[in-house]
Amino acid sequence: MQTVGWIGLGAMGTPMAANLLRAGYRVHVYNRSMEKAAPLIEAGATAAQSPREAAERSDVVVTMVADAAAVERLLVLPDGILSAELNGKTVVNMSTIGPAETRGFAAMVRERGGDFLDAPVSGSVKPAQEGQLIILAGGEADVVERCRPIFDVLGKTTIHFGGAGDGSAAKLVINSLLAMVMQGISEALVMASGLGLDQGKVAALISESAVNAPLFQAKKGMLLQEEFPPAFALKLMTKDLKLAADEAVRRNLPLPVVSTVLNTYLAANANGKGELDLASVYLQLKEMAGMGPAAKED
Amino acid sequence: MQTVGWIGLGAMGTPMAANLLRAGYRVHVYNRSMEKAAPLIEAGATAAQSPREAAERSDVVVTMVADAAAVERLLVLPDGILSAELNGKTVVNMSTIGPAETRGFAAMVRERGGDFLDAPVSGSVKPAQEGQLIILAGGEADVVERCRPIFDVLGKTTIHFGGAGDGSAAKLVINSLLAMVMQGISEALVMASGLGLDQGKVAALISESAVNAPLFQAKKGMLLQEEFPPAFALKLMTKDLKLAADEAVRRNLPLPVVSTVLNTYLAANANGKGELDLASVYLQLKEMAGMGPAAKED
Amino acid sequence: MQTVGWIGLGAMGTPMAANLLRAGYRVHVYNRSMEKAAPLIEAGATAAQSPREAAERSDVVVTMVADAAAVERLLVLPDGILSAELNGKTVVNMSTIGPAETRGFAAMVRERGGDFLDAPVSGSVKPAQEGQLIILAGGEADVVERCRPIFDVLGKTTIHFGGAGDGSAAKLVINSLLAMVMQGISEALVMASGLGLDQGKVAALISESAVNAPLFQAKKGMLLQEEFPPAFALKLMTKDLKLAADEAVRRNLPLPVVSTVLNTYLAANANGKGELDLASVYLQLKEMAGMGPAAKED
Amino acid sequence: MQTVGWIGLGAMGTPMAANLLRAGYRVHVYNRSMEKAAPLIEAGATAAQSPREAAERSDVVVTMVADAAAVERLLVLPDGILSAELNGKTVVNMSTIGPAETRGFAAMVRERGGDFLDAPVSGSVKPAQEGQLIILAGGEADVVERCRPIFDVLGKTTIHFGGAGDGSAAKLVINSLLAMVMQGISEALVMASGLGLDQGKVAALISESAVNAPLFQAKKGMLLQEEFPPAFALKLMTKDLKLAADEAVRRNLPLPVVSTVLNTYLAANANGKGELDLASVYLQLKEMAGMGPAAKED
Repeated sequence: MQTVGWIGLGAMGTPMAANLLRAGYRVHVYNRSMEKAAPLIEAGATAAQSPREAAERSDVVVTMVADAAAVERLLVLPDGILSAELNGKTVVNMSTIGPAETRGFAAMVRERGGDFLDAPVSGSVKPAQEGQLIILAGGEADVVERCRPIFDVLGKTTIHFGGAGDGSAAKLVINSLLAMVMQGISEALVMASGLGLDQGKVAALISESAVNAPLFQAKKGMLLQEEFPPAFALKLMTKDLKLAADEAVRRNLPLPVVSTVLNTYLAANANGKGELDLASVYLQLKEMAGMGPAAKED
Repeated sequence: MQTVGWIGLGAMGTPMAANLLRAGYRVHVYNRSMEKAAPLIEAGATAAQSPREAAERSDVVVTMVADAAAVERLLVLPDGILSAELNGKTVVNMSTIGPAETRGFAAMVRERGGDFLDAPVSGSVKPAQEGQLIILAGGEADVVERCRPIFDVLGKTTIHFGGAGDGSAAKLVINSLLAMVMQGISEALVMASGLGLDQGKVAALISESAVNAPLFQAKKGMLLQEEFPPAFALKLMTKDLKLAADEAVRRNLPLPVVSTVLNTYLAANANGKGELDLASVYLQLKEMAGMGPAAKED
Repeated sequence: MQTVGWIGLGAMGTPMAANLLRAGYRVHVYNRSMEKAAPLIEAGATAAQSPREAAERSDVVVTMVADAAAVERLLVLPDGILSAELNGKTVVNMSTIGPAETRGFAAMVRERGGDFLDAPVSGSVKPAQEGQLIILAGGEADVVERCRPIFDVLGKTTIHFGGAGDGSAAKLVINSLLAMVMQGISEALVMASGLGLDQGKVAALISESAVNAPLFQAKKGMLLQEEFPPAFALKLMTKDLKLAADEAVRRNLPLPVVSTVLNTYLAANANGKGELDLASVYLQLKEMAGMGPAAKED
Repeated sequence: MQTVGWIGLGAMGTPMAANLLRAGYRVHVYNRSMEKAAPLIEAGATAAQSPREAAERSDVVVTMVADAAAVERLLVLPDGILSAELNGKTVVNMSTIGPAETRGFAAMVRERGGDFLDAPVSGSVKPAQEGQLIILAGGEADVVERCRPIFDVLGKTTIHFGGAGDGSAAKLVINSLLAMVMQGISEALVMASGLGLDQGKVAALISESAVNAPLFQAKKGMLLQEEFPPAFALKLMTKDLKLAADEAVRRNLPLPVVSTVLNTYLAANANGKGELDLASVYLQLKEMAGMGPAAKED
């Protein structure tokens, strides 16, 4: 059984590392603010004093942080991962970042003798807790195989897409689709409301229809009650959409709905919905249609 | 058991009427070109010589035709439905038309003493054959109840949305959502292709994800093989989207993705994909991205 | 010199009729609320008691009202224009309505023996006062020629586009372009503001550039001071855009920017900007970018 | 009179450098392929063997090349500008690049003791030849003043927007507006064509209207004849739009028309119009509307 260094103890990272502990792995955890590590240490994890120490003590070191800038810091700071001897070790980035940056980090790790995988995940907090994520892997096939036991603990499926960066690319694709379907559902509900239909009956219709998806079932309650406690914060989806749109433009791909959706998520963010669940894009659309809170008072 | 007049024997109407015959209903069929009626007559239906005759011989007369203009002709022509005595009879329009026109037709039928329902369906040819449609009903509650046995033969669920026109409104909502999700999936695949990912693996990812929907499973094969035999022709979806967009604009509803999607479907139609399945919107997006047939030759 | 019946004394109709009086025309005016006619009557116009009377006393009767429903009422009411003997008379609709409705009204007038022109105008209140409108005419060439002296008083140019409805079509085209350029300018200013540039310097740049247009010079002050007294109310532009989008969809034309712009104008309307000048679409875009009044307070 | 080093002899750079020579400046020219320098050398310029030499021999060294990568190479290559002693010298980048990259280059130049301006230009080949460009300057005010005599030769106006990067930001704003207006005009013409109007008469209408702009007059002939010899190549506008969209997204600005337009330009590029004038976005829109060359043959 490999020893795991786990860096990044946010809403996703913490339950993922906990699952590894539960499966019997030795885990060395590191987080910028170490108080977040307390529950894991209680559950058997060891505290590492730095990213370097997490890397030095482990066979596989995982980064699960906010963005590419955070990953870069973990790699290049004086006591960062790259300052460790990486021969025989694997660095696995599970944060959602762009494919180009991923390839840059892969090259840096390989230059120091280590192996690199990108393995972002599809699924939010609940699947993370239940070990039901989908792992989107990019990198050498044998390195993916070597890490598969770990991935099998964290997720229900691992799909190996290709070389370094391809896991990140797949993540941008699936999250763009999620964002588009979420806005599609929201526009359907705004239309229904504008046409005077009962939202509960429309929800029943969607549930019976060919476009019923787990996403709709997960968000239906939020949409009907117009309460949006964050399972996946809109600001994080906006970050992913920005990466996706940026990558699409770089590849000269016209994607009309992706662009349209990005604009709506940006507007939602700019109008105070960033900390709500991504389903609150529905609120933004309602406000644009004059069905917002101000209108309600009339 | 009520006697049914069935008008409109296209790809949807024929299997629906056949299901009624199979369930033991007496059915009087009428179609502009009566040769289409042959298989149903063989199965026990009676031929009506006109819409009036279909109405006169039946308790419930159903119209299932191409558009509002066709419904109007069936009503107002000299030997049309309105020329029959409609007291005690119910006219049920199951064609997809706009809510405003529906309300107009309802008024015309009621003026002649009849009851009216709009009951468009969600689902294409296969669910029609299997009696697994979703019936979206608008009209008086007691009239819906009276027709429910018929609906139970044709579909798996009947949702009563409200007064006349509300079934049609719900149909526009669900088909708009279908069109949006179909384009969302297509853009995700174009993005994946532009980023160099294997389409089969991306399809596997979508299948495992929160946006997996029966629609994706139904169209996956078409998308991967780029063959689009029509289950639901793109030109018909375009017709529905035009109705939906028209209704949304009339209600002053800004719906960014609905508009964007309508433009793409219009472009797909204008570029020779109208007779293909609606999933061929994927081809239109590929061509816009320079991945079309011309590009293939390079 | 022809005698003119003038129906419709709004912000445009009043100065236009005044110009005809000033040019020596005999003008019979009618308006739903006749108090608006007072200044014109003082200037020499005669009050007509009904649209019929305005038509009966005149060679040319002009309608300049809010929308197609209003034109229709003027024609078909018991004391409407169509109730007059129209042989040898010309009905000229200068209101902005759709081409299809225009063709319907033309047929109705011709059936009663009259000639019909559509002659909507490009230009708002100031050009109306100064007789500097552009007249967009549709109808028979000889009828256009017969009315040209009147048009020469009202405008600086008359363009004869073709048969009945073509003037209306041209009006939708030019107003769509106006709406698109107005939003283009607004997005450029929002972008400039987001990038931290001085708006006055950006306005100077636009003024020097290849996209400087009379529209920008007319609206520059409003945009820089963020005060939008209506020269052309946003709600009226929205009405025209709805007609244009409707006509485009009817003709199966995908027009991505037209659709996008319509959504923004609808949102602006729904968020309280309908009575402001159309340049207030800029405010809507700022609010969507989180630069709205709420943001200012921070 | 300052000595000028001029690097970059493309369609814009060559006539600009020629104007400086004509105005009496000593100019040292450098281009990757020096055969392009021949006409300027004949006109009195001196050939520099490297960017470094161009910088060493001059007070002001101008870069006018394709993109940020090209500017970077000119700076950092072993015989690049940064390898020269830059005390007392000014580096002026007139190429269109992003503001962020501009700020990076400014820092690099200042670190080597030089001054830096960004001074991209608005206007294409003809204004470049005629010294009628608009210069969009970013940098220290006294440095701008020092370079003003040079700018006065190249352009009709210099607008100083602010610190380093602000000239580049202004360039992205004005070119985005140009692209939006160009597509707006194109959609208006597609709409007109779909409504059956004479394009020549519509062009006359636009020319008389509030949206008449020098851009329309410059492109009118191309649009009516559907011939698009490049004055400003569509691929170059696409590059600028990509920079603008990227910057807008980085600043979290939802800009619906900018995004829509970028998608159309990307599609035009992907469909073989990159080398044509940017006005050929009209062709792309016609093809999307099924009015393309294939349709013509029917």
